[in-house]
Amino acid sequence: MAQDLLSQIDSPVDLRRFRESELLILAQELRAFIIAAVAAKEGHLGASLGVVELTIALHYVFDTPQDLLVWDVGHQAYGHKILTGRRDVFHTNRELGGISGFPKRSESEYDTFGVGHSSTAISAALGMAMASQLKAESRKHIAVVGDASIASGMAFEALNHAGVSSADLLVILNDNAIGIDPAVGALKDYLTKTKSGKETGRDNIFESLNFDYSGPIDGHDLPALIKELERQKTLDGPRLLHVRTTKGKGLKQAELDQVRYHAPGKFDKITGDIPAKDDSKLPPKFQDVFGHTLVELAQQNERIVGITPAMPTGSSMKIMMDAYPDRAFDVGIAEQHAVTLAAGMATQGLIPFCNIYSTFLQRAYDQVIHDVALQKLPVVFCLDRAGLVGQDGATHHGAFDLAFLNCIPDLTIAAPMDAIELRDMMYTAQLGLGFPIAIRYPRGRGHLMDWQRPFSKLEIGQSRLLTTGNRIVVISIGTIGVMVQELIETEKLEVTHVDLRFLKPLDKSQLDEVFENHDHVITIEDGTMVGGMGSAVGDYAFAKAYKGSIHKLGLPDSFIEQGPTSDLQQIAEIDRGTLLSLIKSL
Amino acid sequence: MAQDLLSQIDSPVDLRRFRESELLILAQELRAFIIAAVAAKEGHLGASLGVVELTIALHYVFDTPQDLLVWDVGHQAYGHKILTGRRDVFHTNRELGGISGFPKRSESEYDTFGVGHSSTAISAALGMAMASQLKAESRKHIAVVGDASIASGMAFEALNHAGVSSADLLVILNDNAIGIDPAVGALKDYLTKTKSGKETGRDNIFESLNFDYSGPIDGHDLPALIKELERQKTLDGPRLLHVRTTKGKGLKQAELDQVRYHAPGKFDKITGDIPAKDDSKLPPKFQDVFGHTLVELAQQNERIVGITPAMPTGSSMKIMMDAYPDRAFDVGIAEQHAVTLAAGMATQGLIPFCNIYSTFLQRAYDQVIHDVALQKLPVVFCLDRAGLVGQDGATHHGAFDLAFLNCIPDLTIAAPMDAIELRDMMYTAQLGLGFPIAIRYPRGRGHLMDWQRPFSKLEIGQSRLLTTGNRIVVISIGTIGVMVQELIETEKLEVTHVDLRFLKPLDKSQLDEVFENHDHVITIEDGTMVGGMGSAVGDYAFAKAYKGSIHKLGLPDSFIEQGPTSDLQQIAEIDRGTLLSLIKSL
Repeated sequence: MAQDLLSQIDSPVDLRRFRESELLILAQELRAFIIAAVAAKEGHLGASLGVVELTIALHYVFDTPQDLLVWDVGHQAYGHKILTGRRDVFHTNRELGGISGFPKRSESEYDTFGVGHSSTAISAALGMAMASQLKAESRKHIAVVGDASIASGMAFEALNHAGVSSADLLVILNDNAIGIDPAVGALKDYLTKTKSGKETGRDNIFESLNFDYSGPIDGHDLPALIKELERQKTLDGPRLLHVRTTKGKGLKQAELDQVRYHAPGKFDKITGDIPAKDDSKLPPKFQDVFGHTLVELAQQNERIVGITPAMPTGSSMKIMMDAYPDRAFDVGIAEQHAVTLAAGMATQGLIPFCNIYSTFLQRAYDQVIHDVALQKLPVVFCLDRAGLVGQDGATHHGAFDLAFLNCIPDLTIAAPMDAIELRDMMYTAQLGLGFPIAIRYPRGRGHLMDWQRPFSKLEIGQSRLLTTGNRIVVISIGTIGVMVQELIETEKLEVTHVDLRFLKPLDKSQLDEVFENHDHVITIEDGTMVGGMGSAVGDYAFAKAYKGSIHKLGLPDSFIEQGPTSDLQQIAEIDRGTLLSLIKSL
Repeated sequence: MAQDLLSQIDSPVDLRRFRESELLILAQELRAFIIAAVAAKEGHLGASLGVVELTIALHYVFDTPQDLLVWDVGHQAYGHKILTGRRDVFHTNRELGGISGFPKRSESEYDTFGVGHSSTAISAALGMAMASQLKAESRKHIAVVGDASIASGMAFEALNHAGVSSADLLVILNDNAIGIDPAVGALKDYLTKTKSGKETGRDNIFESLNFDYSGPIDGHDLPALIKELERQKTLDGPRLLHVRTTKGKGLKQAELDQVRYHAPGKFDKITGDIPAKDDSKLPPKFQDVFGHTLVELAQQNERIVGITPAMPTGSSMKIMMDAYPDRAFDVGIAEQHAVTLAAGMATQGLIPFCNIYSTFLQRAYDQVIHDVALQKLPVVFCLDRAGLVGQDGATHHGAFDLAFLNCIPDLTIAAPMDAIELRDMMYTAQLGLGFPIAIRYPRGRGHLMDWQRPFSKLEIGQSRLLTTGNRIVVISIGTIGVMVQELIETEKLEVTHVDLRFLKPLDKSQLDEVFENHDHVITIEDGTMVGGMGSAVGDYAFAKAYKGSIHKLGLPDSFIEQGPTSDLQQIAEIDRGTLLSLIKSL
């Protein structure tokens, strides 16, 4: 640290003034900076530690931002951000109004392409390279892609196209054998073999796709990296450099427990230790309610299987995988495949619980329509991280699911208000419905400690009347109903509250009743207002010629940035204060 | 024909009674039957002709439907349908109330998985195979996939997963080097090399993914096929059989002009000739308006490029590819890649016209949100075959686009009423909007002969008032407005008609005016009512406390089967008669 090279770097131009030998010291400093920053402020750790040398080498060798560098997913781009003018604001990473946790075009000219979802970088960089060709501009285009990400279908589509182009495209395969959870799939096994040199001398899979393949090389050997990148800089056409790295490199615990240290929360920057937390007095995360409930149901119903596309830990599908390793499957970053695999299983009488983050279900939209709903196959979609997700920001909010699912015929859509409803919805879903159902729930903890109650069957499409007031009815869907209920109780409001439970089918008899008995309808949802629950209720109100007023609270028709979820709820005006003001104004 | 073996086959059980030598005659008969049927009734020809021998061999060797056979896409499944109990109803293929042009679960137990969109078969068959493993049932699972289809990302995801499973899965690669248009991409080149035997003896790409690879074998050599399938039947685990076929096999013209004979319309079953048609007196297809207009704009604006995922002929992007081969790209069946490639190009100042069938945009939904809209990149989506598409049926209707796009922030959504509006929307879209736009239009011909007029710039979000009446206003979006206008004119109705033009942004000032001056609002659209234009207008009406009535016409919340578009419009109640009745009732 004594030399403090890092503080001299305000852009890669400064970096390029250093001697190669100094870069080794810089790598230590950059690593320490990342560790200290994430230890204090949380964020994604392991991925960025793994590419410290690669990041330095790329900006040292290539003429960024003239040369275009695209990071896939972006968990690994902290070093990139710190070296490209954002060192002094890095402490605002992922905060409200701060810099994004992912590369973002509006933030820096060095962030050539906004990311967050995986496997987009090759397509984007190829587009850039083809544009440069058309414009007869000479520049380099580099996509840095992890081994878990490159196995996703979209990345393969891009490789397949790039291989027949003459675009100046360098794909750097950052191979650490792990995504957020350990990588899976045949390609991963293949890459592992490639590492050991068994395949040397043969056309490998990338060469089969007409890429000029180099590697594998050690991604922590900075001089070797620089030398190889210098060589790559002289080449043209589609080429792939296979770089081996260690996720969490340089922090022992992060290397040893790569899953936990992907995003470890606060930890000790010297020892790496994560402070022990006593969670036993807190209500459980919805994720764990899902995981434990699935195991409980699977004990009783042998037709149940679980599917996760690369999120066993995040979704807690891991609980099922540990309990029933033969009946729960991590298919990798492959949402499209996950959904149609589930459909195939359902044709044979299984009941697949396909757990996908709401934002990632956007990747499998066609499969939900064409392979599941159109065939009325009883797949159970558990949509995790629905609604606002907090610090991951605009790329990750599960804002659109209610809207994009509601237009699909023959699909039931449910959202539990609490852990007990989640359990009961899951229980109901596996009773042999004969049609698909999507159950959406948010990231994080609920509010119930006593959640592990015996299952109750819910009537599909039946809402729950929580309080009866007059004049005003609040219709909520999902966990935001807890806030509504607390508000009504603490403020002693004489307001009717309907926990809608199901967006589809709508509980029309309940709606008929509240339309009849109330002058004002307020709908509130943690999802986009356009085409969401409020729209559906409004459509029905018009059909019934309801003459009262309807007030919709929900996410606005704009992308919402990152920040604490409670702050974002205020910004989106789906918070307690907004609702209270609205009720009082009526 | 003399022997008439085909008429003796009511199910594959009958087929299995024949001697192998008789199968050669059967193949001739089956081919003739398909040719005669498609010649008379239209439909998909080339794909089914190419797999006559394979179809017979599969049902001869395997114990269908106990063994599970999944056809990818399904264009090639006519022979399968004819051999599995549907010979005598095959003349109803693709007709209203008739059998589907694609495999369909509700139609036959031999149709194990409904298809229409490509690249789903491996995922589905793997799901079935894993289900059989769990249930400890011994059966074979076969997915038949074309070479264009297997290059799509979703198929790769499935291969990647299957390769690490022990599922009893046989993938048959039906390699004819063509999809609807000639196959493209590095994998296709690779498969071509594989054909020539250059790669023999090395681990090939499928072996790299841990598949047991066999082939290539001649897919028209029935005895060889049977022998190889008998051998495959004894194997287990993931394996791929590479079969070479000729699309259109057995009809000379179909072999020579494979693109045209994919779905040739009516033709002479003996000579194969397609009767010459004089189209010069008909208004052009919207597809050709798109293609010619794009070329016209590209002449003026060098930033324009074109992208199609495997539909150059169907979308008429081919017109641009012929005029500007360096500026128009067929990326193969790769909708996800197509959209993000366009996004990458747009970052560098290009204006990509990304033409995707409405139903296939469902495959790239996340990319529209995450890679384009979130970054406000000025990609122009031209959504072909929006609304009801006719004989292709439920899998292909572009029913959902208005609903699933409307919830996306920062996206402009337009739908032209006629060819001139389409041209003007395309013209306006390339003027440097600074945001993305989606322009949807239907399959087939418009109503204007005199369409090639000078371009006019449209105001984004501005509707067009076509007639002014009183009490009743009809708000239409898209080409259905032509019917509305004709109705108003021929019936001399005193009805206001607004051609909305843009779903997003809504023309609020126009809506304010019509709300003020009319007691009844009728919305009509060729798209799903749930979350569509009518919902958006309704939402705005509630926000403005509109006290009149709103009547929504649009596609119902159910999947609509195949048939002539005009019949389907009646079924969906978006036809002239329904509108007239509604207006009269008000």
